[in-house]
Amino acid sequence: MTLSIHQRIPARTGAAFHVKRHQRIRVIDVSGEQVADFTAFYAPNTEERLDPLVTIDVLGHIQPKIGDALYSNQYRPMLTFIRDDVGRHDLLYPACRPEMYKLLYDKGDAHPNCYDNLNQAIQPFGIAPLTQHHSFNVFMNVQQTAQGALQVVRPLSKAGDQLEMRAEMDLIIAISACPTLESPCNGYHCTDIVIEIE
Amino acid sequence: MTLSIHQRIPARTGAAFHVKRHQRIRVIDVSGEQVADFTAFYAPNTEERLDPLVTIDVLGHIQPKIGDALYSNQYRPMLTFIRDDVGRHDLLYPACRPEMYKLLYDKGDAHPNCYDNLNQAIQPFGIAPLTQHHSFNVFMNVQQTAQGALQVVRPLSKAGDQLEMRAEMDLIIAISACPTLESPCNGYHCTDIVIEIE
Repeated sequence: MTLSIHQRIPARTGAAFHVKRHQRIRVIDVSGEQVADFTAFYAPNTEERLDPLVTIDVLGHIQPKIGDALYSNQYRPMLTFIRDDVGRHDLLYPACRPEMYKLLYDKGDAHPNCYDNLNQAIQPFGIAPLTQHHSFNVFMNVQQTAQGALQVVRPLSKAGDQLEMRAEMDLIIAISACPTLESPCNGYHCTDIVIEIE
Repeated sequence: MTLSIHQRIPARTGAAFHVKRHQRIRVIDVSGEQVADFTAFYAPNTEERLDPLVTIDVLGHIQPKIGDALYSNQYRPMLTFIRDDVGRHDLLYPACRPEMYKLLYDKGDAHPNCYDNLNQAIQPFGIAPLTQHHSFNVFMNVQQTAQGALQVVRPLSKAGDQLEMRAEMDLIIAISACPTLESPCNGYHCTDIVIEIE
């Protein structure tokens, strides 16, 4: 099958794409240890969008696996996991944003961030900026104790590892190659992400 | 100190209130085992609102305790825990909504739900309906394994138990006495919630 799209998303930037129902999306970690903040909208009505907490509600689990779907705020399956080289992603952390860098790292507003990357990426698709992005964080590795304490650690993804998902409806998807250098989130180095859609 | 507000919220309904900075809010479980879906907005700019996932990010924990705050989508503390008779609440589950009852319980659109209760309650305060409510669920008891599997079980709250919080900014708060009868969420019976604000 011919690749419809093969696009490299440079480190610390974002991009968005149209995806047709039943197309496959591959999120590829080019160099390893790189998180990709991912969100999706139902193309005909973008008020329906990927919802990590609905996904957790339906799955009864915080870690989706092959065969599981990511769900929308309207409790419909949007994307089904087809192939997963890593098996460790995150549904809990919001997209990093200026206020986060300010509070947690005392960094100014100029820090690149997934929130602005995602909002900029969706703008050409006619989607107004959201006041928050609750993203699905591909390759993000969060350790959790049975008591509920969380710790972000280095991703398990190695160069070339990928997550492949099948679109269950017509979508607009947006991805940000996470720009965090201040935590183990991206292994202390920010690198490129490749998106393939076919 | 004189009580500013003491209001009973009948089972399966919602209500909203203005709260001034440094006022205290008590959420009281009248009969026991009753969950109250709770959300809050910064009164001068209601695009800033309570965000359970930002709260988890800042606390590094899914279970807030006395002295912890609930945070807004802009990473500012909104409400600080002052007294907690139960010690078990939930930041993960979205407010129940018609699409949830349809998918998980095959129930029709007529089922009372926290999503509509919250949207109806905030309308008189000039806040347009949200397309999703990621609420803080007072008294909701979710068991989680170290592997990330979740299970909703009966609340630990007994008749008269309360959670008391201090407002850290001027707020509009909204509460829904959760109408779920289909799971152990409310111990299989829906009862009243009392709100006190002083």
